[in-house]
Amino acid sequence: MTPAPALKEQSQDFHALMRELGMRARAAAGPLSRATTAAKNRALELAAAKVLENAPAILRANALDLAEARGAALSAAMTDRLMLDQKRIDAIAKGLREVAALPDPVGKVMAEWTRPNGMRIQRVCVPLGVVGVIYESRPNVTADAAALCLKAGNPVILRGGSESLHSSTALYECLRAAPREAGLPDGAIQLVPTRDRAAVGEMLTMVEFIDVVVPRGGRSLVDRVQRESRVPVFAHLEGICHTYVHAGADIDMARKVTLNAKMRRTGICGATETLLVDRAVAKTHLPPILDDLAKAGCELRGDGATQAMDKRVVPATEQDWRTEYLDAILSVRVVDGLDQAIEHVNTYGSHHTDCIVTKDAAAAERFLTEVDSAIVLHNASTQFADGGEFGMGAEIGISTGRLHARGPVGVEQLTTYKYVVRGSGQLRP
Amino acid sequence: MTPAPALKEQSQDFHALMRELGMRARAAAGPLSRATTAAKNRALELAAAKVLENAPAILRANALDLAEARGAALSAAMTDRLMLDQKRIDAIAKGLREVAALPDPVGKVMAEWTRPNGMRIQRVCVPLGVVGVIYESRPNVTADAAALCLKAGNPVILRGGSESLHSSTALYECLRAAPREAGLPDGAIQLVPTRDRAAVGEMLTMVEFIDVVVPRGGRSLVDRVQRESRVPVFAHLEGICHTYVHAGADIDMARKVTLNAKMRRTGICGATETLLVDRAVAKTHLPPILDDLAKAGCELRGDGATQAMDKRVVPATEQDWRTEYLDAILSVRVVDGLDQAIEHVNTYGSHHTDCIVTKDAAAAERFLTEVDSAIVLHNASTQFADGGEFGMGAEIGISTGRLHARGPVGVEQLTTYKYVVRGSGQLRP
Repeated sequence: MTPAPALKEQSQDFHALMRELGMRARAAAGPLSRATTAAKNRALELAAAKVLENAPAILRANALDLAEARGAALSAAMTDRLMLDQKRIDAIAKGLREVAALPDPVGKVMAEWTRPNGMRIQRVCVPLGVVGVIYESRPNVTADAAALCLKAGNPVILRGGSESLHSSTALYECLRAAPREAGLPDGAIQLVPTRDRAAVGEMLTMVEFIDVVVPRGGRSLVDRVQRESRVPVFAHLEGICHTYVHAGADIDMARKVTLNAKMRRTGICGATETLLVDRAVAKTHLPPILDDLAKAGCELRGDGATQAMDKRVVPATEQDWRTEYLDAILSVRVVDGLDQAIEHVNTYGSHHTDCIVTKDAAAAERFLTEVDSAIVLHNASTQFADGGEFGMGAEIGISTGRLHARGPVGVEQLTTYKYVVRGSGQLRP
Repeated sequence: MTPAPALKEQSQDFHALMRELGMRARAAAGPLSRATTAAKNRALELAAAKVLENAPAILRANALDLAEARGAALSAAMTDRLMLDQKRIDAIAKGLREVAALPDPVGKVMAEWTRPNGMRIQRVCVPLGVVGVIYESRPNVTADAAALCLKAGNPVILRGGSESLHSSTALYECLRAAPREAGLPDGAIQLVPTRDRAAVGEMLTMVEFIDVVVPRGGRSLVDRVQRESRVPVFAHLEGICHTYVHAGADIDMARKVTLNAKMRRTGICGATETLLVDRAVAKTHLPPILDDLAKAGCELRGDGATQAMDKRVVPATEQDWRTEYLDAILSVRVVDGLDQAIEHVNTYGSHHTDCIVTKDAAAAERFLTEVDSAIVLHNASTQFADGGEFGMGAEIGISTGRLHARGPVGVEQLTTYKYVVRGSGQLRP
């Protein structure tokens, strides 16, 4: 194997470069799948220590990215995502240690039974394989994604955003040696050492080397990955999340849950984008909810009935029901009841996260059952759509796909299983 | 919606035809996902009764397929797979009733926990979505696949082999009305009403209508589906299964397990294709094993050490280690011990099903852990690679993929999950 530093030389032969990363990851998969929990945790602790130790170098690298971002006139939001300071570096190190503290899923017996012929069958949790992570401006994904993959026993190939390559590389330098120092294989954590987007195209077709791809970033990145990838993908294209205020909703709870679901942070995938309110309570419940939102700086786009409630509401178009604003904008519709609300969510939503606010338990159960989303909530903010908030530890993303992982993708979702059968000479009749 | 009979008219517009099937299946998904266990079981019982009732019509249709097969000079093996008789029809009806008797996975709470803020989180089993099944000559797949999908709450689109279209259609006529008579949606079970292979191409790109495709058939079908499909696939391309006789193997057990693993049925994916024997016991164990196999009519292809044991052994080439014979042929290699055996299996195998025969528990554990296959066995025949033999009820196939379903794909593997969160007004801080 070529030593890792040689990879840093920019190469135009992305196919050969990426295949080399792939082969190295595949070679690491077997040994890493059998690594002890202690060794994996030691690697994560070492990485955390190195990140803290090398904070000045990481900040210098980040300053280079930020300078280039100013030259490229990056948006304020993107620049904020790119920016690192000591607090954010501390958070990265803390994140690595939190993953070390998570239970190790590998080797867990998920089910076991004995057959009438005496064969004992176990379904045992094993690592998923090689994970490819394609992300954009946030350099912290370098450490977060690597940590989760390592804990689950999976080699990872990281492909950071071109705008954060200096920062990602500096972070990667802290992570890279940690597996080896803990006795784990080289190739456990690798970073694609080029800004060229052709490297992404290679990753998406490396079915023999990569078992699953996780895109972390905006709609255009996820859309490209979902369209082009020959490798299975864990992702959500968008989070068009709904809060539905049912006729049986407590007005105070409806106000608080809606305001939190929309305005706590508007840029996350679990932020509510559409509010549905039952016609039966629109006159009482909708005006104070709209007033809360308008006062918090939220633009309101509504149907006719909503516009009639508040002069600040501008008309919503058909496109609004299909839009993930990721901003202080909310579409609002008055619906005729539970059936119409469920139909609206299933038609216009993105099967991500949707909430009903009501005191009516039967209505809640119907919503929870009939809304076909990864996460359905009763009387709680859609902003809870997060692996950490679910108590799963960190997450590598949220999936709206139906296969393998649905909802937050944590360390457990980065595993698969095998059947282990123990017999005493059984023959099939 | 167009009534189903209209679909029987052959249409050249496969795109429109397949989209119509897709839309009908998608429309059925919601209602079917909420169907009661009783209704689903009633549909399966009705279907079983109709199959028995219409046995004469099914046999007449099968006779048409068999006549065409004779004209097309189909192989004896394919003709046997195609052939139905009263016994096989009885088995189809019995299979439908066995699926009715399986536990219903839908609605099962797979895990639940309460967060410190009081939110109750449940992970609940729900149907996977629309399943596409593409199969070859066996008409019974029509009923088996439809039954498993229906039990798991999934609409199914069946695409049978062109050589069995008369038989599949006759069986489908028995199944088609059963969901409706049990109060389940039309569109729960549909059969593609054309022999044109373009219909398969349409199915493989219908990502908006089909959630997973299951190919059932030979290598060329599975290979095409895996290469072309934009829809996720549950499949195994081949079953290059190994039996490894370790130095610590009991000679009698090794003989019996090997003979069963190879010769019980040579045409199934769990049949052993390669025998590995430790050099330390080759002189004692290998001659009787080879003799058993040769006497049972098995052609033997071996490495030099194996050839030296028995004159009936012809030389194996590198290609033999990579070949799924599905026939009375076995490749045989003498290995230097556990490490070489594991490496051989992981290098040349297909990650399907592999067995170690030994009395040495530590060696067995290493084999079970380090062989990266869907099913690993200790002291039991590889021919047990089957959902029914595992006690999972029927199976729709066996997957060597790592995502979602690995090993036998039964009714549980045809489901996914959603997170149901119940709160009392929790806001995310």
